Amino acid sequence: TACMSVTGAMAQSDPLPSWNDGAPKQAIVDFVTAVTTEGGPDYVAPTDRIATFDNDGTLWSEQPMYVQLAFALDRIKQMAPDHPEWKDKEPYKSVLAGDLKGLAATGEKGVVELVAVTHAGMTSDEFTKIATDWIATAKHPKTGRLYTDMVYQPMLELVDYLHSNDFRVFIVSGGGIEFMRPWTEKVYGIPTERVVGSSIKTEYKVVDGKPVINRLPAVDFVDDKEGKPIGILGHIGKRPIAAFGNSDGDFQMLQWATSGDGKRFGLIVHHDDGDREVAYDRKSVFGKLDKALDEGPGLGWTIVSMKNDWKQVYPGQ
Amino acid sequence: TACMSVTGAMAQSDPLPSWNDGAPKQAIVDFVTAVTTEGGPDYVAPTDRIATFDNDGTLWSEQPMYVQLAFALDRIKQMAPDHPEWKDKEPYKSVLAGDLKGLAATGEKGVVELVAVTHAGMTSDEFTKIATDWIATAKHPKTGRLYTDMVYQPMLELVDYLHSNDFRVFIVSGGGIEFMRPWTEKVYGIPTERVVGSSIKTEYKVVDGKPVINRLPAVDFVDDKEGKPIGILGHIGKRPIAAFGNSDGDFQMLQWATSGDGKRFGLIVHHDDGDREVAYDRKSVFGKLDKALDEGPGLGWTIVSMKNDWKQVYPGQ
Ligand SMILES: [Ca+2]
Ligand SMILES: [Ca+2]
Repeated sequence: TACMSVTGAMAQSDPLPSWNDGAPKQAIVDFVTAVTTEGGPDYVAPTDRIATFDNDGTLWSEQPMYVQLAFALDRIKQMAPDHPEWKDKEPYKSVLAGDLKGLAATGEKGVVELVAVTHAGMTSDEFTKIATDWIATAKHPKTGRLYTDMVYQPMLELVDYLHSNDFRVFIVSGGGIEFMRPWTEKVYGIPTERVVGSSIKTEYKVVDGKPVINRLPAVDFVDDKEGKPIGILGHIGKRPIAAFGNSDGDFQMLQWATSGDGKRFGLIVHHDDGDREVAYDRKSVFGKLDKALDEGPGLGWTIVSMKNDWKQVYPGQ
Repeated sequence: TACMSVTGAMAQSDPLPSWNDGAPKQAIVDFVTAVTTEGGPDYVAPTDRIATFDNDGTLWSEQPMYVQLAFALDRIKQMAPDHPEWKDKEPYKSVLAGDLKGLAATGEKGVVELVAVTHAGMTSDEFTKIATDWIATAKHPKTGRLYTDMVYQPMLELVDYLHSNDFRVFIVSGGGIEFMRPWTEKVYGIPTERVVGSSIKTEYKVVDGKPVINRLPAVDFVDDKEGKPIGILGHIGKRPIAAFGNSDGDFQMLQWATSGDGKRFGLIVHHDDGDREVAYDRKSVFGKLDKALDEGPGLGWTIVSMKNDWKQVYPGQ
């Protein structure tokens, strides 16, 4: 029976060693066992084993701010010597003064200008190099670790566990698609074509006989909330059977994944561990979790308590 | 050496049995051997072995008209009983009369209306079912074969050959992405997430408690000409090392793929076989091949003569 095979598999070797025993871990293993048991009532052929993961706050840290925002602020500081006019002009003035409240006060207009200046106006290859160089050395302000070490060990194990059960795992993030792609394969084992994210417009041009793709200062697609199922359809073309997130921005992705036919799985990471990470949910600027926390359990979603369900938060601790 | 290993591999078993010996077949085998020979000067790691294929006229027939256009015309005929007003209104009048010249005379306006009526106004799941049902039974007007049998046997072998050499093969087509996805895995072994195509806008909604993705009557993205490198960046996030097409709509895709660093490969299928298929190029309405035919050889692209280079055109002949 399914129950015996779970026990058997877990006895052999625990695929999720950083997870404490408990309902969430058991729910994950039960789901994977059910959909991979040939001849069982919940069997899903490998071609349909699609799983989608949010990134910020689900696979890696999003506090004290989104990593991509830290990248944008660093870029402004790097570029500032060539732009003396910035010291009297918002949103640059606030950024250069390290005044996040002042930056927030510039509103959407300020953020759009920040994205345009730091993420557009270069070729796609140039942006990839900028992002690659930055992520190789930039450090988290609290821990001093590389951002790519600020990933959640239990979630890395979960991605590996799904891969080893013939799932195809995609990132579906509100973050910029080209900001993530330079490092997702190395850090998560997820190749560039399995990364879905927000994007700006681009154009193909031949300049001096050399083809380039230019990044333009205009938003193309916002992969958040209702955008996540749309991004999933556009990139993957199939409804996931499992989806993993941590905020209300993931509500629609989990709703879409778990309302399909057959066995489905939805999981929300709840950041309730103020000692080992940061405790935040309903009132957080980054990764607000409110509606999904209230409605998730009624929809059959598994709510993971970082504090209680994870033995370890980051790798190598 | 590379040369000896090619000879050795081909002697063992020919991966391209429907290709006649000659320069194009040799160029394909030389390329694949070069990029897969570990320690060789042209070696490419599996993660970067990305190949992109156009669909219409490259993997399957596009004469006497694009298959998707035949689908749209059939849909109009199916829907006509519910729309008595259509018999006096263009573009429906021409479609129902089987008058393709009349349809062409309605111009872009007519085509846009046709797409809106036949491809939008339903959910994504509903459209998938419509396309799946149609492709299961619709027959090619000349041969009476299923459209999914009107695929090119030598190209199927080429896709398999690349797969067996750890390439990830993508379709990058001007055709509708959701029109192709229902059958590409079965016919080509290419799963939904490796299909890039043109798309219309969609919206995510919850209707009576059930989430759906609605297809809207507005173009979102045209995956043709300059759109192909843009679609490749958006979906794949890496520049292909090999690209395969048959018309001027593929020029930019091949240009983008073959202008990257290292060993690259571009191939154009030239439809010059009036006996076994249809001979067409510079003046064709569907699959016009002019600029790429003139400039391709100078850019190092391989031009395949269907007549001379293919032993067989369709499977099972
Ligand atoms: Ca998140
Ligand atoms: Ca074509």
